[in-house]
Amino acid sequence: MNERIRKQIDFILEVDKEKNILRQTHLTGNTRQENDAEHAWHLALMAYLLKEYADEEVDIARVMVMCLIHDVVEIDAGDTYAYDEEAMKTQRAREDAAKERIYSLLPEDQKLDLIALYDEFEENKTADAKFAHAMDNFQPLLLNDSNNGGDWRYHKVHSAQIYKRQQKTAIASKKIYEVTDELIQKNIKMGNIIDGE
Amino acid sequence: MNERIRKQIDFILEVDKEKNILRQTHLTGNTRQENDAEHAWHLALMAYLLKEYADEEVDIARVMVMCLIHDVVEIDAGDTYAYDEEAMKTQRAREDAAKERIYSLLPEDQKLDLIALYDEFEENKTADAKFAHAMDNFQPLLLNDSNNGGDWRYHKVHSAQIYKRQQKTAIASKKIYEVTDELIQKNIKMGNIIDGE
Repeated sequence: MNERIRKQIDFILEVDKEKNILRQTHLTGNTRQENDAEHAWHLALMAYLLKEYADEEVDIARVMVMCLIHDVVEIDAGDTYAYDEEAMKTQRAREDAAKERIYSLLPEDQKLDLIALYDEFEENKTADAKFAHAMDNFQPLLLNDSNNGGDWRYHKVHSAQIYKRQQKTAIASKKIYEVTDELIQKNIKMGNIIDGE
Repeated sequence: MNERIRKQIDFILEVDKEKNILRQTHLTGNTRQENDAEHAWHLALMAYLLKEYADEEVDIARVMVMCLIHDVVEIDAGDTYAYDEEAMKTQRAREDAAKERIYSLLPEDQKLDLIALYDEFEENKTADAKFAHAMDNFQPLLLNDSNNGGDWRYHKVHSAQIYKRQQKTAIASKKIYEVTDELIQKNIKMGNIIDGE
């Protein structure tokens, strides 16, 4: 095989490691922690199913690719829990180094393409990036709600933390934010989320 | 929330179960069996990276969605190993019943859309379906080759069985079939695949 496809295969095999990166979120039924690869699958499928709720027009293929690749950097950088403020201070530097190493496995044109999509996702300014972020916020919320808020209770999460994070959903989709708010309020009432700062 | 988004969320939570459906293929490093959700993630990402090798022009968004949903039926029907001839006799009936139950969770228009995409994948006649199938064949081959053919050795697979299955790749992508053939021949020489019928 030639060098181009060899490099593509090297990348494909490298990202297989995402299947071993565990997130804080548990699967429905609270059986075990979710891994990055299955999380990314869920987001991409959700993006396709919920695209009607994007407030700005999206290119669904680009949104799905962003969803599929958004956690590749965690192969080196690890998962940073959304409410772990210490870990979040070093997150950017760890993820930038990972980005350079892992995407460099690809042929140059595809390295540039995927880094551009990843950076666009991280900057969260375009319609596609904002909708991908809405999925990245909404999916763990749905899983957590289905599990009686187990992850929120375990981490003693406060409503202000969740609302801060969910602002990314509010700027992408009024409808999904409306459902998000409904689920947060329900879980505050149930005692799964601590109300306040 | 209204009935439409309630149904979409019900489906999204139902397909979470794909993360617990185990395939025969092992991850790189031979650590554990792969599940359907992470497998589907891998296919969709591969489709995007390898689309230049499709012999006919493909709509990459449609191919990715086919990859993402092609194993949803296994939530009820279970995984049928590609070389288990007894299980394959009942596969169609089990998967048809699963298709009807699971996709019926969605709003009617999305049920029809996803069933149409799934049926198109199964019939394997269009360019998009053929390329999605090529990914579905190539991905476990890459994992298995990376694991010194462990799954082939365990199941005592013969080259004729693999070549029969890989005809689906041959009709989708000459280039990917060329690499497939190279990897099969390498693994026959290494004694990982039994040569012959």
